[in-house]
Amino acid sequence: MRENDLIRELRAKLRDPEGVLGIGDDCCVWTPGGTTCLSVDAIVEGRHFTSVATPAQIGRKAAGAALSDLAAMGARPVGAAVTLVCPGRWDAAAIMDGLIAELARHHCPLLGGDTCGGDALVVSVTVWGEAAKHRLLKRSGATPGDLLVVTGPLGGSLASGRHLAPQPLLAEGAWFAGHPAVHALMDLSDGLATDAPKLAEASGCGCLLLPAQVPVHPDVPEMSDTVRAALCDGEDYELLAAVAPDQWPHLQLAWPFANRLCVVGWLIEQREILMEDRAGRVVPFTYKGFEHST
Amino acid sequence: MRENDLIRELRAKLRDPEGVLGIGDDCCVWTPGGTTCLSVDAIVEGRHFTSVATPAQIGRKAAGAALSDLAAMGARPVGAAVTLVCPGRWDAAAIMDGLIAELARHHCPLLGGDTCGGDALVVSVTVWGEAAKHRLLKRSGATPGDLLVVTGPLGGSLASGRHLAPQPLLAEGAWFAGHPAVHALMDLSDGLATDAPKLAEASGCGCLLLPAQVPVHPDVPEMSDTVRAALCDGEDYELLAAVAPDQWPHLQLAWPFANRLCVVGWLIEQREILMEDRAGRVVPFTYKGFEHST
Repeated sequence: MRENDLIRELRAKLRDPEGVLGIGDDCCVWTPGGTTCLSVDAIVEGRHFTSVATPAQIGRKAAGAALSDLAAMGARPVGAAVTLVCPGRWDAAAIMDGLIAELARHHCPLLGGDTCGGDALVVSVTVWGEAAKHRLLKRSGATPGDLLVVTGPLGGSLASGRHLAPQPLLAEGAWFAGHPAVHALMDLSDGLATDAPKLAEASGCGCLLLPAQVPVHPDVPEMSDTVRAALCDGEDYELLAAVAPDQWPHLQLAWPFANRLCVVGWLIEQREILMEDRAGRVVPFTYKGFEHST
Repeated sequence: MRENDLIRELRAKLRDPEGVLGIGDDCCVWTPGGTTCLSVDAIVEGRHFTSVATPAQIGRKAAGAALSDLAAMGARPVGAAVTLVCPGRWDAAAIMDGLIAELARHHCPLLGGDTCGGDALVVSVTVWGEAAKHRLLKRSGATPGDLLVVTGPLGGSLASGRHLAPQPLLAEGAWFAGHPAVHALMDLSDGLATDAPKLAEASGCGCLLLPAQVPVHPDVPEMSDTVRAALCDGEDYELLAAVAPDQWPHLQLAWPFANRLCVVGWLIEQREILMEDRAGRVVPFTYKGFEHST
C-alpha cells in the first residue's frame, strides 16, 4: 500500500478531538492543559516480536508498551503519533487497526505519523500526556527507607506470549499520583532485576531486594527457576512504586484494584544493590535482568 | 554498544533546559507555553540514505528533516525525542552526535528516546514546538486566488547528496507566520508536483502550476529535464506558502532572507490540478512527484 493511500484511509477512520488538528498537516496541533510528559517506544521485528505475531497484535503491543510509560508517570494520555516502517509482506493497515484500537481503549487519539517501506518491521509510538492527579511521578523522588512495591505478579511474559498484550496500568498510575506517600514510580519493562536499580540510582539511593517476596506470575512454568523468571524475564508492564513505609498499611488498605500490591524490597542509603538470600542474609544482588543490545 | 551504555553516554553529554526533565525517566516532562505542534519523521537505510552516508550525516538528516516540519508550521522547536534502531555495523554514538549537533544548531534539546538493535538502520525523530509568532500555519488556510510561493530553487537533491543536509527553514517559517498575508504553509519534501496538490486539497482548492517559473537548483545537471527535476525530485525542504495576491509585492519587498521568493502557481476554485504548458495553454498537470511506497 502506498503511503498516501494508508494516510487517506487512516484519516477517514479517525476523528480528531475538538480543537485538535490531527493527521494530514506538517504537524499535529493541540493546546496543552499544563505540564506535559512524552515518551517514544519502539518495537522491532525479530527483537520484540516474530512473524508468528499477527499484525493486530503487533500494533496493540506497540501502543500498549508506549502507553505504559504514561502510566509510569501517573499521566493521562493526550495524543499519540506513530512511525511505521513496514515491509510489503506485512499488512500495514491491519497493524494500524490494532494500534488505533489499543490507543482508543485508553482514550488516546492518534494524531500524527510517518510511514515508509523497509526490510524489517518497526513500529515506534510517541505518546504524550498530562498529570492525571496534579503531579507527575518521576523515578527520582524516592528516599532511603521507602518500600519498593509492585502492582502484580512477574515473569513468563515472553514464553507465554503475554508480552504481546501489555496492559498499560493508567488507572493504577493515576491512583499512585494521587497519594503523597508514593514518592517515585516506573513501569517494569526490562525486569525487576534491571529496573529496580534504575529507580534507586535515579533517586540517589541503593536498594535491598527480597527475591523470596517477588510475586511469580502463573505464566512461569513450575519446574523452572521461578524467582529468576519473575526477576529477570521482563515485559511485565507492572508498576514499581516507592512508598513511604509509615503510610504503607494505609495505602494497602485503600488500594482499589484487583491485583495485590507486594513489597519486593526497599531503598537504602548506600548506593549498592543488595538482596536477602534464602537464609535471610544480606548479600550482593546477583540476578541480571533483560537488556537490549544494539 | 548496549542500550544502557548509550543512554548513559547521552545523559552525560546533554544538559536539560531549566525546569525540564530530559532523558532518563519513563517520560520527559516540560511545561508548554501554549498551543503545541508535533511531528514524527523517520529515515530508513536503503530508502532515505545508503551505507555511503556517514553516521553523522544520517543523524543530521534525521534531525533536519524533522525540524523542517516545525518550520512548515512557523513554530520554534521546544524538544525532540529519537527512536534509533541500529544494527551493530553502524556507530550509534556517532549517529546520535550528528543528530544532537543538528538539533542544537536550532536550539532544540533532545529530551527522550528509545534505542535497540535491528537488521536495518532506522532513525525516527519526534519534534515538538510552539508558535514562533502567535499563530501556527496550517496547510488548510489557503483560498482561491492565493499565489503559491517557494523559498528557493528545487531539484537535484538526491543525485548531489544535498538531501543529506536538509536546512530546516525555521526563521523563514517564523517570518511567514508573522505575516497575515500568508494563509498556508508546508515544506517541500516529496517535490512540488506532489506537495502543491496536497496544500490545495487541504484548503479545499485546486491549483494551477507554472512549471516554467519554478526555480531550478544548480544541483540539477544542465543536460537533464531540469523542469521535471525541480518539480519531482523531492527532498528540497524549501517552504511552499500560499500568499494573498494583493499583498505579494509588499511581502516580496519585506522578505529579509538571501534566497529569492518565486511564484510557482496559484490556487483555484475548481478542485483540479492544472498547469500552464510551454505555449501558455492551461492543461491538466502531468508531472508526478516522489512517493514512498510501503
